[in-house]
Amino acid sequence: MKFVRFEYNGAVGFGVMDGDDRVRVYKGDMFADCNETDVTVVRAEIKLLPPTNPGAMIALWNNSKQQIAELKRETPKEALWFLKPASSFITDGDTIVIPGGEAQRVVLEGELGIVIGRRCKGATEQEAGDCIFGYTVINDVTAQDVVGRDSTFPQYSRGKGYDTFSVFGPCVETDVDPLTLRIESYINGDRCQDYPVTDLAFNPHQIVAELSRTMTLRPGDVIACGTSLGVKPIHPGDTVEIRIPGIGSLVNRVA
Amino acid sequence: MKFVRFEYNGAVGFGVMDGDDRVRVYKGDMFADCNETDVTVVRAEIKLLPPTNPGAMIALWNNSKQQIAELKRETPKEALWFLKPASSFITDGDTIVIPGGEAQRVVLEGELGIVIGRRCKGATEQEAGDCIFGYTVINDVTAQDVVGRDSTFPQYSRGKGYDTFSVFGPCVETDVDPLTLRIESYINGDRCQDYPVTDLAFNPHQIVAELSRTMTLRPGDVIACGTSLGVKPIHPGDTVEIRIPGIGSLVNRVA
Repeated sequence: MKFVRFEYNGAVGFGVMDGDDRVRVYKGDMFADCNETDVTVVRAEIKLLPPTNPGAMIALWNNSKQQIAELKRETPKEALWFLKPASSFITDGDTIVIPGGEAQRVVLEGELGIVIGRRCKGATEQEAGDCIFGYTVINDVTAQDVVGRDSTFPQYSRGKGYDTFSVFGPCVETDVDPLTLRIESYINGDRCQDYPVTDLAFNPHQIVAELSRTMTLRPGDVIACGTSLGVKPIHPGDTVEIRIPGIGSLVNRVA
Repeated sequence: MKFVRFEYNGAVGFGVMDGDDRVRVYKGDMFADCNETDVTVVRAEIKLLPPTNPGAMIALWNNSKQQIAELKRETPKEALWFLKPASSFITDGDTIVIPGGEAQRVVLEGELGIVIGRRCKGATEQEAGDCIFGYTVINDVTAQDVVGRDSTFPQYSRGKGYDTFSVFGPCVETDVDPLTLRIESYINGDRCQDYPVTDLAFNPHQIVAELSRTMTLRPGDVIACGTSLGVKPIHPGDTVEIRIPGIGSLVNRVA
C-alpha cells in the first residue's frame, strides 16, 4: 500500500493511493491503528504533504560501494550519519529554493528512504525489519561548497539543511522488498543517477539495527540511506526528478 | 517569568513558576497567545518535562574564547553546529544513562540554551533578539570516544545523540540579559566549570541571526551555545548539576 499525507480543505489527512488519481482516506494513527473510511479524494484536488512528520531525519554518509571504490575511500566500520532539520522538509511538487549567496554549488542526491513504524531500540537485524513501516523516495539536496568550507568542522547539517533541501515522498510504500529496487535521478529529463539498492554498503535492516544502538527510533522517523555516483549540480529553472520504480517519483522545480 | 512544561494526572500542561514550590497553570500557546488560569499546582506533585518540545535542537561547536585559546584553535569564521535528536531529550530530575559498550568516555558539558519564540528567517542581529523567547540551561552530554573514532567523519550527532544525552530545563526564563549570566557545572558537588556567557565567541543574537540564514527557526526550537573549559567525565552513580544563577539548575543522577 502507498500511504500519503495531504492537506484538503485546510485540514491534514492521510490515506492510501487507489491507482494514480485517487486517494482512499483513512482515519486513526498511520503506524498503530488505522482504518479506511468511505471517503475518496481526487489526487488533483489535494496538496500532498511529506508522507510522515518525522521526529528525526537521519541521513547516511559514504554508504555506496561504487562511490567508495571510485573515490578510493575505505568502507566504514559503522554507518556514519548526521541529522537534517524539520524546517528543510518538502515533498513532490514543491519548489527547491537555491539559497544563493553562500551556497553556490548545490547538487541533487537521489536516495532510498526508510520509514520507521514502531519504537525501536537495541534491535537485531531481524527485529529491525519488523520496525520498518515502509520505504520512500528522497532527494537529499546538498550545498557542497558549504559542507566543506571550514577545514576544522564538516558542515553536513548546514550544507544539507537549508529550507527545502530535504524532499521526501510522494508516498510510503509498505509492500516492497527494498533489495529489488533501483534509484534514478533526472535533471530536465536527463538521467544522471541509476543505481540498485544492493549498491549500499549497509542495507536497510543493518542501518536500522545499528542506529537503534544509539537512539530510540520512533514511528514516522525517516532514514536517508545515502547516495551513489552521479550527483550533479542543479540550477534555478531546472526540473529535477528522483524516481524509484515500485515506490514513485519526486518531481520538483528549482528556483 | 520562568515557563515550565509538566505532566500532571496524565495530561501535559504548562505554566509559570510562582516561587520555588508552585506553578501557576497557563492555557493556550506558550509562544503566541497564552493566559493564566486560576489553577495552581504544587511543584512536588508534577513531573517536569523539557520546557519546550523543539522541532530542532541545534548545538554549537568551538564557541568558547577560553577553549579556543587553550586548544590553540582558530576562532571560526562562522558559527559551527550540528543537530541533536528529539529521542535524547530529558530534563531536571531525570536519569542520564551511560550506554556503556561503545561509549566509555562520557562527559558533561554545561551550556546556555536559547529558546526561539517566533519564526525567524534571514534575521539581522536586532531582529534575532526579537525572535528569542528566553533562555534555558543545557547539559550537552557527550561520548567523546564515539565522536572521534572514525577518522573520516566526526560523529557529533551520534556521540551526543544517545537517549538521555540532551538535558534541558528546568524552565525558560524570559526576563534575563544573557550577557550577565554564568554557567556552572558540578559533579557530586565539586565544581568543574564556571564561565561567563561573555566567553562565547558568537553571542546569542549573532548565533540566531546566522542560523536563520540557513534555516527557518521556529517557536520552541532550542540552540545550545557551546561549552567552555572544564568538561569532565561522568560515571554511573554520580549526581551532576548544571546551574545558571538567574535561570535555574539541572540536577541529574547518572546510571
